[in-house]
Amino acid sequence: MSDTVDALVPFAPDRPKTRLSDALDTAERREFAGAMLSDVLAALRAADFSPRLLTTEATGRDVPETVDDRPLTEAVNAALADHDPSPESPLAVVMSDLALATPRAFARLRRDGDDAGDVVIAPGRGGGTNALLVRHPEFRVDYHGASYLDHLRVARRVGASVREVDSRRLATDIDERDDLTEVLLAGDGAARDWLRDAGFRLDAGDGRVSVERTRE
Amino acid sequence: MSDTVDALVPFAPDRPKTRLSDALDTAERREFAGAMLSDVLAALRAADFSPRLLTTEATGRDVPETVDDRPLTEAVNAALADHDPSPESPLAVVMSDLALATPRAFARLRRDGDDAGDVVIAPGRGGGTNALLVRHPEFRVDYHGASYLDHLRVARRVGASVREVDSRRLATDIDERDDLTEVLLAGDGAARDWLRDAGFRLDAGDGRVSVERTRE
Repeated sequence: MSDTVDALVPFAPDRPKTRLSDALDTAERREFAGAMLSDVLAALRAADFSPRLLTTEATGRDVPETVDDRPLTEAVNAALADHDPSPESPLAVVMSDLALATPRAFARLRRDGDDAGDVVIAPGRGGGTNALLVRHPEFRVDYHGASYLDHLRVARRVGASVREVDSRRLATDIDERDDLTEVLLAGDGAARDWLRDAGFRLDAGDGRVSVERTRE
Repeated sequence: MSDTVDALVPFAPDRPKTRLSDALDTAERREFAGAMLSDVLAALRAADFSPRLLTTEATGRDVPETVDDRPLTEAVNAALADHDPSPESPLAVVMSDLALATPRAFARLRRDGDDAGDVVIAPGRGGGTNALLVRHPEFRVDYHGASYLDHLRVARRVGASVREVDSRRLATDIDERDDLTEVLLAGDGAARDWLRDAGFRLDAGDGRVSVERTRE
């Protein structure tokens, strides 16, 4: 169980988080995306994963990387085919914007035992697939649309058992302005610090909590 | 561990889910809120909780109920004072709109052991507190604003240890039109069936999944 598990982290430094453009300019989005990636890599390592970036261009970061500028689904499927996952050699695929993820949350992906799952899925809000752990050689991804449902179908087709990880921290990918609230509420790493330094604060107001920016 | 644990479920039949008014009319919101409540009660019972409604008016449902028309925070605090929670006699407080909740998710609230927690919190999206389990006699609630942060503060003030339950299913309360997507994606009970019967379908479109209504 203490063997490290390889984890692929897709990253697109050339297209940083466009849906945050009403909250952050391009240079800021690039910095913030980098801070979230740092948090994800640190939490993965603390949970005994061995992360590798799957990046659209070289990053210069101190982490192994594979450069592949094809669309996400194709690039991940090429990496899955190359790795040839099995129970002895699983491969995780983890999104780089899970700013709330903790080592404990990631550790739930790699649980051993009879019900470990040939494919382990941590679904995201809106039908996405925020983290996967694959132990079956024939499973492939499809990140278009409601990928969570597609991945259930693919698993059924290839005869792979599925285990779902019910984690709010893994379900929360940071795509839109509203999601920044979650980072300020429950993050504790570089992404939370970056937002605070950029002047973002929680605004409790009357109803649901949101973010405000006190300075540019 | 197989002893049942009392669970208070606040419910306001007179003010059904006003933030869903762009998706459902008043009568529909009342029906849908009732379907979600049925799912929550069934999942609680299956996880060995003994639910009691804390309702603003009598419901006629086949479940014990306390009628209290005061605001949520006051009514829950009166019930906490009355129950006098302890490790031997905890009291859970569970929102009635957790349409994705499963018995397994609720069971994580009541886990025993050294790190069981004097106060167990399942935070919701946007800083809410979707489910609580209280074992400490002095803990009180405050549901205004970012209640999750407030509850951490209250616990610290009374010297109660806190355990957080990291569950997407408990974090997803159904307040707004976008939240209906989550019910169609991951629900499997009366609320999901009600939405389907009312004509709601997933719309995968190009990007994030949403709901559309195919008939009124």
